[in-house]
Amino acid sequence: MDQINNIQVVPCTSSNHLKPFRVHYSQNGTKKSWDFMRTHESVSILIFNTTSHCFVLVKQFRPAVYVSGVTYELCAGLVDKPDLPLEEIARQGVLQECGYDVPVAKLRKITSYRSGVGVTGAKQTLFYAEVSEENHVGVGVAEGAAEPREGEVVKVPLHEAMTFAYDESIPKTMPVIFSFIWFHSNMSPKYKISTNV
Amino acid sequence: MDQINNIQVVPCTSSNHLKPFRVHYSQNGTKKSWDFMRTHESVSILIFNTTSHCFVLVKQFRPAVYVSGVTYELCAGLVDKPDLPLEEIARQGVLQECGYDVPVAKLRKITSYRSGVGVTGAKQTLFYAEVSEENHVGVGVAEGAAEPREGEVVKVPLHEAMTFAYDESIPKTMPVIFSFIWFHSNMSPKYKISTNV
Repeated sequence: MDQINNIQVVPCTSSNHLKPFRVHYSQNGTKKSWDFMRTHESVSILIFNTTSHCFVLVKQFRPAVYVSGVTYELCAGLVDKPDLPLEEIARQGVLQECGYDVPVAKLRKITSYRSGVGVTGAKQTLFYAEVSEENHVGVGVAEGAAEPREGEVVKVPLHEAMTFAYDESIPKTMPVIFSFIWFHSNMSPKYKISTNV
Repeated sequence: MDQINNIQVVPCTSSNHLKPFRVHYSQNGTKKSWDFMRTHESVSILIFNTTSHCFVLVKQFRPAVYVSGVTYELCAGLVDKPDLPLEEIARQGVLQECGYDVPVAKLRKITSYRSGVGVTGAKQTLFYAEVSEENHVGVGVAEGAAEPREGEVVKVPLHEAMTFAYDESIPKTMPVIFSFIWFHSNMSPKYKISTNV
């Protein structure tokens, strides 16, 4: 795992990444305002390796998660190219972060939702991708990527997935928990999965 | 539903609500920095009304969700009183937002997770609360609350819950989808629930 040290937090008077906006509006005739951040729409992908029967996650050092620093997350990508379909952005995310080259046809949309509605509110779309060792073409750019994403690709065996999902000592995002349970509900006829929730 | 108009978005040079911080750190010997926002830890509560067999959600106008404006969310509360246990903060949230007075013993912790790890990264803890019409003591402060939360309490019948969860034309947060499916997996022996996912 990465060595993280010399952590120092300071107020930030002007950020290139975080630009607050203020929205003025009227609600039932009363003038109001609300401050928020613009963030990109994004895709997240639950990757299941059918050869090793493992889920493929990305373990990242997240400076914003100041309590523990490390979180387990789904492979993800920002929707920063408006001309590309979400499936193609998801496909590139799987390749770049985790090193699997899968055809778009292997991606299945699960659903979409809003994230962080108080501060950001960006739309996120969740996909499911089945990969095999034959699709593995590299270690994943995430393992040696440029900033800001520098994750470590980790595998969670299928039979440990539900225990992992509910183990609160492992910091993780909601889509990890949700997608494991979605898999349990929708794929368990196809793949044997432990049900000791 | 509320009347929302005169929406105007402007850059925000100084916000009382959003204060960016910058963290400096070393990763494998390389000096780096990352800008983030501090946000409060929070609790969310899946409320199930055992009298009407409905889930109780809060429909809110969220200025940050600039695409549609309205989202369906779980009842929630900020952990802004460090001396109170999370269960008590959840109990107060259920009372203040949705008007149900339930004892802490009726609250069951489902799990906790990290939200918005890129920008904020705050911990959120998810609870399940069973309420009945007997617990209903008011309309919920959310219906006529002071800023910033001004939601409308809405009920989703149990038999429509899974269709609601996966209907992407209804903007909602991930904990709504997750908790409906959690209920489906964990409470379906107790309550009949539609399985047409």
